[in-house]
Amino acid sequence: MESKKIIYLDNAATSWPKPPTVAEAMERSMRESAANPGRGSHAMAVKASRVLFETRKRLARLFRISNPNDIAFALNTTHALNLAIQGMLKQGDHVIATTVEHNSVRRPLEALKRKLGIQVTYIGTDAKGLLNVKEVERAILPNTKMIVVTHSSNLLGSIIPVAEIGEIARRRNVKLLVDAAQSAGVLPIDVEGMGIDLLAFPGHKGLMGPQGTGGLYIHPNLELEPLMHGGTGSKSEAPEQPTIRPDRYEAGTQNTVGLAGLSEGVGFILKETTEVIHNQEQRLTFQLMEGLQGIPGITLLGPDIGVERTAIVSFLLEGVDPSEMAFLLDQQFGIAVRAGFHCTPLGHETAGSYETGAVRASPGYFTEKSEIVSMIEAVEEISRNLRNGK
Amino acid sequence: MESKKIIYLDNAATSWPKPPTVAEAMERSMRESAANPGRGSHAMAVKASRVLFETRKRLARLFRISNPNDIAFALNTTHALNLAIQGMLKQGDHVIATTVEHNSVRRPLEALKRKLGIQVTYIGTDAKGLLNVKEVERAILPNTKMIVVTHSSNLLGSIIPVAEIGEIARRRNVKLLVDAAQSAGVLPIDVEGMGIDLLAFPGHKGLMGPQGTGGLYIHPNLELEPLMHGGTGSKSEAPEQPTIRPDRYEAGTQNTVGLAGLSEGVGFILKETTEVIHNQEQRLTFQLMEGLQGIPGITLLGPDIGVERTAIVSFLLEGVDPSEMAFLLDQQFGIAVRAGFHCTPLGHETAGSYETGAVRASPGYFTEKSEIVSMIEAVEEISRNLRNGK
Repeated sequence: MESKKIIYLDNAATSWPKPPTVAEAMERSMRESAANPGRGSHAMAVKASRVLFETRKRLARLFRISNPNDIAFALNTTHALNLAIQGMLKQGDHVIATTVEHNSVRRPLEALKRKLGIQVTYIGTDAKGLLNVKEVERAILPNTKMIVVTHSSNLLGSIIPVAEIGEIARRRNVKLLVDAAQSAGVLPIDVEGMGIDLLAFPGHKGLMGPQGTGGLYIHPNLELEPLMHGGTGSKSEAPEQPTIRPDRYEAGTQNTVGLAGLSEGVGFILKETTEVIHNQEQRLTFQLMEGLQGIPGITLLGPDIGVERTAIVSFLLEGVDPSEMAFLLDQQFGIAVRAGFHCTPLGHETAGSYETGAVRASPGYFTEKSEIVSMIEAVEEISRNLRNGK
Repeated sequence: MESKKIIYLDNAATSWPKPPTVAEAMERSMRESAANPGRGSHAMAVKASRVLFETRKRLARLFRISNPNDIAFALNTTHALNLAIQGMLKQGDHVIATTVEHNSVRRPLEALKRKLGIQVTYIGTDAKGLLNVKEVERAILPNTKMIVVTHSSNLLGSIIPVAEIGEIARRRNVKLLVDAAQSAGVLPIDVEGMGIDLLAFPGHKGLMGPQGTGGLYIHPNLELEPLMHGGTGSKSEAPEQPTIRPDRYEAGTQNTVGLAGLSEGVGFILKETTEVIHNQEQRLTFQLMEGLQGIPGITLLGPDIGVERTAIVSFLLEGVDPSEMAFLLDQQFGIAVRAGFHCTPLGHETAGSYETGAVRASPGYFTEKSEIVSMIEAVEEISRNLRNGK
């Protein structure tokens, strides 16, 4: 590996780099306040509790949540989704999802199918990952408890019209769970305005925080069965989880240091605004798509250029296995992308790339135009070498 | 709050400070390698995977685990305990636990009582938290699936003879789950030699890592129902969790940055050795107990001076509410202790402190003798002021 600067186009897996304030806050937290929040009243524990509350407040501002205590922190989006799905569904329930869901939605649903016999309907999107919301309404059955949708496909970048689905869900008295893995920090999210009952989000992607953070917004009228039971520092004498929020859903010691970092990540988003971030990322995305589509043998997945999307460009080059492509980009050009199934076999079926997987390039807010140019040139060179039999 | 140096005696909640290498490794991870491990093959993702594997290897060395992949990372000990308890127990099972368990064991057990109708027997320890292992064997029923014990009481510091219980468990074909919240990094643990089938441990206490880390060792012959289902970066096409370890039990993105820190914490323990750490902490503990027991009106909880224990000194001062004591120590003396129920109401019942709770002072490996002296003098002064009617 050469020591030249890495071109990082794997932001859909984890955003990198982060705003410098994120690591600074973590360092400060390790030094000054990494006591156990909510587990003591001494000065350091109080400081740690304050950091957690500030993080919650900023997240609430970003997602337009009235009460910050309706947010429960989680290890990752998968944890948040499992809490929502396992905590909500009971024997006999029906759920509607889509064919662009990540395994973090599909696998918990399939597990409950086996365990409790719940029914699941996966609504197909078109090959570009675009959903006809009318089909969601048509799929509602008398026992439909919940609709689960990703806000944006992690393979195709397509955007699911969450607010329209929220309107249907409200009207039909069905709960709406949104997987914001690819949208939190990038697309505007207004849980109340969009009719979202449960919002699962990662800390380490669009919100620019570190790994090991994330959370679930839970509508104040909903009460979930906790996924984990344990110490909460509140009502210690009771044998069951307290009903008080967020304690009910946050058993055990939370990732104080990581959440101190997340607070700064969210602070950065609030300052820049999702509008500016999304526009910038979309410009880079279209630039990349335009460059790639001129290369012989390239197939781009997902919506066409010009159609609103998140910063994900999945593609195939005829004659090159996606993992070979990712390897060459990494080794010869120092470009980090991701090849494979991206934990969404349903999405690949939808896009017609189930046999091969795909290469996914995902720019971020800090990606430079010149890096996009380098990426395009690299794929061009790989394509040229292939045609020249190298 | 004065700006003088804090005397931190709350290590049983979270150890502090950490070895400097912990924060350094986290900072390096944020800068260089915080890509998504196991989710890509590019250089940064590979680096992140290596950090995780190195952490696993060091933990395996410390706990004498043959295969590092038998360790699954978790958000905290509570997460690990819930995975073990919920993943193991089925309708009709009987479990044996003790009256010194933390709520992170008691609450998941009580939840399964309500949900699945499992039976639970809590074996009483004596008022000092010492267990008669014969009572464990006597409590075994034909349907006993598992024994769950804390390795050391988080209220009393008493040590439960895990190896003896492991011998019984093996002989009677019952599984043994050990909660090492207070012992990991301090007491010697040898999962194979001690007959431990499941070991839940925190990263942020005796192992000197940051909060947001911990894990569960799962004996290779055991297969648990996963607590969370989701993306693993392996066998993406399958609708169910893969059986491969550790992926089966690690859905979603792990806390790479925190685990990079934990690796250094465990490295520090391996270098110092648990023997040296435990002896040092025990010396400080006995010093503290000796000083406190001379103060009029003091009651010390837990085993007598000289009996092996972990670094936990819980006490009551007649006429002073524990939370008032903790407040005075914090505000007037800059000493951080913890008052209340410490998430173990059963433990307080056992010790006879259920009405009031207690004050818990927990020194760490970095605590200095002079800080213990300051703590003793502070409690003396509070006691004197009380007697003088101040």
